[in-house]
Amino acid sequence: MSKQKKFILDEKNLPKQWYNIVRDMPNKPLPPIHPGTKKPLTKEELSVIFAEELMDQELSTQSYIDIPEEVLDIYKIWRPTPLVRAYNLEKALDTPAKIYFKNESVSPAGSHKPNTAIPQAYYNYKQGIKHLTTETGGGQWGSALSFACKYFNLDLKVFMVKVSYHQKPYRKIMMNTWGADVIPSPSMMTASGRAALEKDPDCSGSLGLAISEAVEMAVQNPQTTKYTLGSVLNHVAIHQTIIGEEAILQMEMAGDMPDVVIGCFGGGSNFAGLGFPFLRKNFKEGKNIRIVAVEPQSCPKLTRGKFQYDFGDMAGLTPLLPMYTLGHTFQPSDIHAGGLRYHGAGAVVSQLLKDKLIEAQSIPQLETFEAGLLFANTECIIPAPESTHAIAMAIREAKKAKEEGRNKTILFNLSGHGLVDLYAYEQYFAGNLVNYDISDDVINKSLAELEKL
Amino acid sequence: MSKQKKFILDEKNLPKQWYNIVRDMPNKPLPPIHPGTKKPLTKEELSVIFAEELMDQELSTQSYIDIPEEVLDIYKIWRPTPLVRAYNLEKALDTPAKIYFKNESVSPAGSHKPNTAIPQAYYNYKQGIKHLTTETGGGQWGSALSFACKYFNLDLKVFMVKVSYHQKPYRKIMMNTWGADVIPSPSMMTASGRAALEKDPDCSGSLGLAISEAVEMAVQNPQTTKYTLGSVLNHVAIHQTIIGEEAILQMEMAGDMPDVVIGCFGGGSNFAGLGFPFLRKNFKEGKNIRIVAVEPQSCPKLTRGKFQYDFGDMAGLTPLLPMYTLGHTFQPSDIHAGGLRYHGAGAVVSQLLKDKLIEAQSIPQLETFEAGLLFANTECIIPAPESTHAIAMAIREAKKAKEEGRNKTILFNLSGHGLVDLYAYEQYFAGNLVNYDISDDVINKSLAELEKL
Repeated sequence: MSKQKKFILDEKNLPKQWYNIVRDMPNKPLPPIHPGTKKPLTKEELSVIFAEELMDQELSTQSYIDIPEEVLDIYKIWRPTPLVRAYNLEKALDTPAKIYFKNESVSPAGSHKPNTAIPQAYYNYKQGIKHLTTETGGGQWGSALSFACKYFNLDLKVFMVKVSYHQKPYRKIMMNTWGADVIPSPSMMTASGRAALEKDPDCSGSLGLAISEAVEMAVQNPQTTKYTLGSVLNHVAIHQTIIGEEAILQMEMAGDMPDVVIGCFGGGSNFAGLGFPFLRKNFKEGKNIRIVAVEPQSCPKLTRGKFQYDFGDMAGLTPLLPMYTLGHTFQPSDIHAGGLRYHGAGAVVSQLLKDKLIEAQSIPQLETFEAGLLFANTECIIPAPESTHAIAMAIREAKKAKEEGRNKTILFNLSGHGLVDLYAYEQYFAGNLVNYDISDDVINKSLAELEKL
Repeated sequence: MSKQKKFILDEKNLPKQWYNIVRDMPNKPLPPIHPGTKKPLTKEELSVIFAEELMDQELSTQSYIDIPEEVLDIYKIWRPTPLVRAYNLEKALDTPAKIYFKNESVSPAGSHKPNTAIPQAYYNYKQGIKHLTTETGGGQWGSALSFACKYFNLDLKVFMVKVSYHQKPYRKIMMNTWGADVIPSPSMMTASGRAALEKDPDCSGSLGLAISEAVEMAVQNPQTTKYTLGSVLNHVAIHQTIIGEEAILQMEMAGDMPDVVIGCFGGGSNFAGLGFPFLRKNFKEGKNIRIVAVEPQSCPKLTRGKFQYDFGDMAGLTPLLPMYTLGHTFQPSDIHAGGLRYHGAGAVVSQLLKDKLIEAQSIPQLETFEAGLLFANTECIIPAPESTHAIAMAIREAKKAKEEGRNKTILFNLSGHGLVDLYAYEQYFAGNLVNYDISDDVINKSLAELEKL
């Protein structure tokens, strides 16, 4: 019989706790602060827009958080997800490196996003909340939350960036299928939306504006309505650690352990989800596993941004967060990896990067699609444009291993499949995609805005 | 800990043989015959258009066929597939019945079709064939074969029914991503295509015409080029039995065994794949498991067709096959389950139905979408429009169990997901879908054509 390709955990070995890295960090993340008073926000202040238990987790310093039975029951629809040895990719690269990937594309929504959508919906439901709001760009988060809300019978309004609403009709239909109300943003339903439309009736929207609309709608009825966010914040990263906790057990099944762990990077949730449990091995077991975040060359907050307090949204309505940022007014280029078009990084990831406990790399768009196509043609799964960034980095590492003639074990996160993003591949085949090399001037101009804060 | 939801076989327990039901049938299927001589076709005659080893299997009477190691290696990309207990669907129906489904949607192409695409590509490759041709309607088969051909470095031309080519752009991009050449049919590349376009320059194509083009292109260079078919024939059903062989092992893991096994029905491949290994239990172990094929009300060959020899394609270019048929000139209504819009059934399934060893039911379109939506909202996977027919039947059986107040174990095949068919759901939400109740006159007129054969 041939070699084992997939390493599948039995359902009974599904991890029962999420991991919170904050406890193990040598330097703790800085707190979110109020833009006016500049004082750290309390749980009570944050709970105006978010569910209370989520804010307990956001501010928690305990190492492990029990996953509720109700959440585990839903995780079991698609979890544990497979860990896969990419023999065919290795062969195509003629590399001595061993390449593994964690396949998060097998969830009903096609990405890792349900890992946090489910508990976020659950804790809101438990608190008696009836309505949730959120924003979505490419639609991965919006569709995951729709699926979660259907489960707990919560009403959901998704503000979808108008340009994506029209470009990605299938994502909208997915959300509708799971019962969500999808509103192209800017809309006439909020003051922020009306103001934007008054200024420019043809405004095609932005993630920042959609966040403003979703937050505004939530705070109008804080007793029954809450806002939710699919990345950046620590409670989101905590929920995603189910990925890495499973992966550790599966690497043990494979009798192996990675030298390098790779995740693509937008706000940080899939990267943290896979990487943090391995980083714990560095902290606790004296391992030296490299944890690498991969961002687009066109949105290089980790590699060329500044570590300082900034707003989470373009309009400046959120608390100030400590982050590597390009400035909240930075307008990302029109790349197809919509989930990576964000100006900042989460507070925890930012602190870890500042302390050189993790690494960051940026990769241009064409290299990522080339890598995605090689993956589709060897491992046969068509990856999401976001995930191709992790693949491209894994390929770079595998080629380096070949040049250096040494063994290396690489693990990356396949955060989602690209079946609802096939338009991007068509554009790639047609030769319509380009790289975007952002000038220092553009970045400096955007960062200069931060001095006003 | 809560109840087990998924039953996953370990890779090492992946079945190593396909099952050929012909050996166990009380009455053997009638052979394909030459339309001119009316004599049974030999392997040599069939091998002009198909690979030789596939024709050995087509005519084989041995019970089991070893799955080549090379095929098992690729199966392991997504196999074994999960068997899932649909607790949430049961709860929504408030039924005493237990409902299980076999989740074939987890393959890279999103359906059960790769189960036969891989061995078909493999045997052609082994024979030294360089080019394959095929047709596709909705695109499930075309995308599965593209993925398989990429693997064995075979060049593939897919004739895609022109109306689908324009309606389902994502399916076309999937095929391109895996390197296939997709040609809208009718095309100017074949005499059949040119004749159709001469008659009607706006001709939007049909599956029958696409078959004609694909066969015509293959026979021009029989040394290097072969034709492939994704359903109807027995070698296809044989390859699909991997589904049922796995399901039997998984039902044993669950400590259960189905009273009724359900599959949707187009040409018969996913139905046979799940059903035949359970039918073996009836033949060999004296079990009494009901095996139910579910067809659209609008294309009722099994429930209202006639058992007799007919052509496999509309143009009458294939051998004559013994089948339940509505007549090869029957024009199916424009339902969204494109994979079920076919006038005939395979020879083996037809014989089994004639001998009352399996059952058939038809279901109207709106009931299938209602069932698909309930499934998406309980089990959280958006099913392909074809697969919703099996779900609708499972729901009928579960409701009946409730009415009768008795236990029952139901197993159905989730043959594919609907992520690339979301347009159909949008049409359903918009109220644009209807039922099609076909009149006796229409069927009788089409069947009358058969008297000319």
